[in-house]
Amino acid sequence: METIELNKIKSPADIRKMDVTELKSLAAALRKTLIQKLAAHGGHAGPNLGMVEAIVALHYVFNTPQDKIVFDVSHQTYPHKMITGRMEAFTDPVHYDDVTGYTNPRESEYDLFSLGHTSSAIALASGIAKARDMVGGTENVVAVIGDGSLSGGVAFEGLDYGATLGTNFIVVVNDNDMSIAENHGGIYDNLRELRETNGTAANNLFRAFGYDYRYVAYGNDLSSLIAAFREVKDSNRPVVVHINTMKGMGLPVAECHKEQFHFTAPFDAATGALVNNASPVSYADLFATDFLEQISHNPGLVAITAGTPGVIGFGPDRRAQAGKHFIDVGIAEQQAVAMASGLAKRGATPVVGLASTFLQRAYDQFSQDIALNRQPATFLVFYGSMFGMNDETHLGFFDLALLSDIPDLPVYTPSCREEFMAMLHWSERQRQTPAVIRIPGGSVKSNPDVEILDDYLNPPYQILRKGSRVALIGVGGFLPVVTEAADILAGSGVDATVINPRQVSYLDTESIDTLRDYDVIITAEDGIVDGGYGQKVASYLGTAPVKVINLGLPKAFLNRYNAKELQSSCGMTPQQIADTVMANLRQ
Amino acid sequence: METIELNKIKSPADIRKMDVTELKSLAAALRKTLIQKLAAHGGHAGPNLGMVEAIVALHYVFNTPQDKIVFDVSHQTYPHKMITGRMEAFTDPVHYDDVTGYTNPRESEYDLFSLGHTSSAIALASGIAKARDMVGGTENVVAVIGDGSLSGGVAFEGLDYGATLGTNFIVVVNDNDMSIAENHGGIYDNLRELRETNGTAANNLFRAFGYDYRYVAYGNDLSSLIAAFREVKDSNRPVVVHINTMKGMGLPVAECHKEQFHFTAPFDAATGALVNNASPVSYADLFATDFLEQISHNPGLVAITAGTPGVIGFGPDRRAQAGKHFIDVGIAEQQAVAMASGLAKRGATPVVGLASTFLQRAYDQFSQDIALNRQPATFLVFYGSMFGMNDETHLGFFDLALLSDIPDLPVYTPSCREEFMAMLHWSERQRQTPAVIRIPGGSVKSNPDVEILDDYLNPPYQILRKGSRVALIGVGGFLPVVTEAADILAGSGVDATVINPRQVSYLDTESIDTLRDYDVIITAEDGIVDGGYGQKVASYLGTAPVKVINLGLPKAFLNRYNAKELQSSCGMTPQQIADTVMANLRQ
Repeated sequence: METIELNKIKSPADIRKMDVTELKSLAAALRKTLIQKLAAHGGHAGPNLGMVEAIVALHYVFNTPQDKIVFDVSHQTYPHKMITGRMEAFTDPVHYDDVTGYTNPRESEYDLFSLGHTSSAIALASGIAKARDMVGGTENVVAVIGDGSLSGGVAFEGLDYGATLGTNFIVVVNDNDMSIAENHGGIYDNLRELRETNGTAANNLFRAFGYDYRYVAYGNDLSSLIAAFREVKDSNRPVVVHINTMKGMGLPVAECHKEQFHFTAPFDAATGALVNNASPVSYADLFATDFLEQISHNPGLVAITAGTPGVIGFGPDRRAQAGKHFIDVGIAEQQAVAMASGLAKRGATPVVGLASTFLQRAYDQFSQDIALNRQPATFLVFYGSMFGMNDETHLGFFDLALLSDIPDLPVYTPSCREEFMAMLHWSERQRQTPAVIRIPGGSVKSNPDVEILDDYLNPPYQILRKGSRVALIGVGGFLPVVTEAADILAGSGVDATVINPRQVSYLDTESIDTLRDYDVIITAEDGIVDGGYGQKVASYLGTAPVKVINLGLPKAFLNRYNAKELQSSCGMTPQQIADTVMANLRQ
Repeated sequence: METIELNKIKSPADIRKMDVTELKSLAAALRKTLIQKLAAHGGHAGPNLGMVEAIVALHYVFNTPQDKIVFDVSHQTYPHKMITGRMEAFTDPVHYDDVTGYTNPRESEYDLFSLGHTSSAIALASGIAKARDMVGGTENVVAVIGDGSLSGGVAFEGLDYGATLGTNFIVVVNDNDMSIAENHGGIYDNLRELRETNGTAANNLFRAFGYDYRYVAYGNDLSSLIAAFREVKDSNRPVVVHINTMKGMGLPVAECHKEQFHFTAPFDAATGALVNNASPVSYADLFATDFLEQISHNPGLVAITAGTPGVIGFGPDRRAQAGKHFIDVGIAEQQAVAMASGLAKRGATPVVGLASTFLQRAYDQFSQDIALNRQPATFLVFYGSMFGMNDETHLGFFDLALLSDIPDLPVYTPSCREEFMAMLHWSERQRQTPAVIRIPGGSVKSNPDVEILDDYLNPPYQILRKGSRVALIGVGGFLPVVTEAADILAGSGVDATVINPRQVSYLDTESIDTLRDYDVIITAEDGIVDGGYGQKVASYLGTAPVKVINLGLPKAFLNRYNAKELQSSCGMTPQQIADTVMANLRQ
């Protein structure tokens, strides 16, 4: 069987009839189709291309969906989706967007969880295995986790607990010697040692955790994988299968440029060149460029990422340039934040950059290690906006409420490029307080009307325009939006006061008290209304005659929404804001 | 030198002049004094008694405070406080409360952080070491962590990163073969193997993470400890010193009953009997008793703790009785919450009990693994109240805002025993939603006026009393408080509506809309005002004529406060609430 008609593969049952030669053809066809879709559509290239054979072998050996497979991060599950009834979403461009980029139980019974944050698969699978043992069942439970994800705390917690199950529990460690970028951490020396000794090194992290252990040197070889999975199938105690795969396998440019092709925008499959290579300057670029200019005269300045250097603008070149001033702790947000406290305590100047959706992992460290100890570390929040990532697993609009309710941890909300740089520079030079700086969503904008301060410790609100009866408070990226609403109102003869609160953790009550007898105050923020900034204003003015209207996002796990439509559905366009004001003026 | 005059020890410099014989006398005197204070005052007995020699040896060998020691949890630092200038707080009962139970930089330069949550010391110390290497310095950096704390995700993250430092970094693992209760996790088999082989086992967790390794079999022997610490002092690469100590050493009853004497109330030093042994029934007792009655007919019912079985009412006897229905995952909150998702997914009925202050560690798992996936797991929040723990590191009034702003995760606030049991039983039998049940603060109370529902999915508010002009909404434990305020108001001829919201994640807008033309609404909750329930009401009614006043706690890291005084300072006594109403009635 030379060619495989992919669209005839409706479920794993269809591949279980194949022999190894056919399976190899299948894997080749899957990979070819994957590359076509990735080139046209973009997506997680490296993780999926590296896992084609392993996913085929898993579904071939294990009796899914009775046997349960939990994929960590689940960004490597495109081949899994292809062979579990969703082939058309990969073969037919019209249907490319029928599936999400992650497992999703609403799509298929083969998908156990909606999952997009790393490192949790072992913990989730341990619960499934334990429930099986309690309520009765004999299925295999398999967790699939990449080497990069192993550094996350919950992965270790899961590994530690899972070892105690004493029954069937299979952890497949997909080791491609890469995280999104290169790996960092002591365990990676051990993984290398295991690879270099064909799994025989005396030093063995997994055995130290209490697991049986099996090594597969050729993790893209179907026969090796099938043999290994057959060996551990129905095992009656916890076992790790450590497979060595090639990230980006089969797409030469992705094999060479693993970091760039971890996740990629559409590209030319022949050359690897991005279809649209014009990327405007980003806040990450601004930060990274400025940072590199400072390191020569500030020996303690250090930028920290938790496994996502690209998020903060540090590609390989800039990392090389930064040298010891750049730290990647691996996927380990708790470590990044707690370590920043230690760095600040000893006189260094740490700047930690985190994606909004991932900083959730470190809430306790923000509270205990940073805020309670008032260590002067700076935190930059990227993608904290409705205009950022829009998968239900990667939403960026919860951080504002989350962090601004921690005591002694001011959350700054710059509204433009100049204000961002001023807040960053102030925070880097002061030693009095931690500071969270939430980067505005959307493209980089300038605003000459925004007043720059030398000192942002407890800053007063800036009154950009002084009007009467109506006040519009625009948080961060919504300052230009409410300013535009004020322009519209001016056309109707209404002079609105426009306010930049600068930070959202504490109210400038002196400024707010001047609004008590206004007709209406509108707050607009790029985050959920519940627990957010606006509600603090509404509460503070709960006994005042002024009407307070809080605009923001609903508390919901939205999925793949259109940001412009969302803005509009929340009544947050300039025209809508102006209309709301007009409807609430006193007669 | 037979006897040591403890009050002459003003700093570690005073002990560095001693010989080993004198140091042994010192340790004996410290222990004797510690036992006297512990018996009279209560405190963390086991951890401190076990670490007397190690702490003496650390300060003897290392040049503190130039050399830096970060103590994990820091509940073992009583001997450290004694020899770093705070002896009087242990020798003189008048001064017993001059020091906190944890390290605190405001007390001493020898205390590096305010620290009370476990597992963070390695991460914090790694930051100090890295800063030393960047800005210049040659001091030793030492993290001291117990075996029980090693199971926390951030401990593993720290261990993983710390191995890459490549310079002086010393991790002292204090292994007493106990967490608060017994240890759980695969790594503990490895620790036992290391103890049993005098540190020579080929399987070695610490070497697998990349550390040099040294074992001290007699971790309460000063000579052994001094030799080991001298050996690693000024080492130029990361090293683990694994010391085997005896928890509760020197107090026979604490050596025998390690769990009970981890933390103890005042006791008779001779017999170990608690001075005040009459403990009223607690919500934890109610839960545990009820749970044990159900397990015979519910094979999938499972109670989960993250290393604190006592918090949820499961002492050794009840754990034995529960058998496989009880899981202690070790100190690993992320694992507890994510695992519950897996358990629920596979048809089991998990009930996870967490202390308010520690659940912060699992915010991301609550959001991603539980809420986003809508798994029907039940979470009981203990000590979520101003009337719970009052150390700045262990506050219990942030959870309400924290969890209630997560979508699809209803946070229930029972106000009395009957309502708690009804919510618990409903949550255990339904399969539609996760549920957080926040146990009311203070003692267990009954309230026959509270209406019990069969189904708590999106419950309406209960109107306990229908009045006019004034509404009092009492969340959880504050329902009886506002009811008492209503009684006072009735004496002044004001009929207040009294409302039990039952849950605080979503507003019952139908009920709230009936209050729009009232004079005043007061909300009272046992949590911070910012981001809490009351602000949702104020925001929703921001354009209505009614005044809304939100009562709750300030957003602050309060320390060792008096709860009654705090309640009063927040205007939350019944009389104060009644007075606030009277001051806000329309004329």
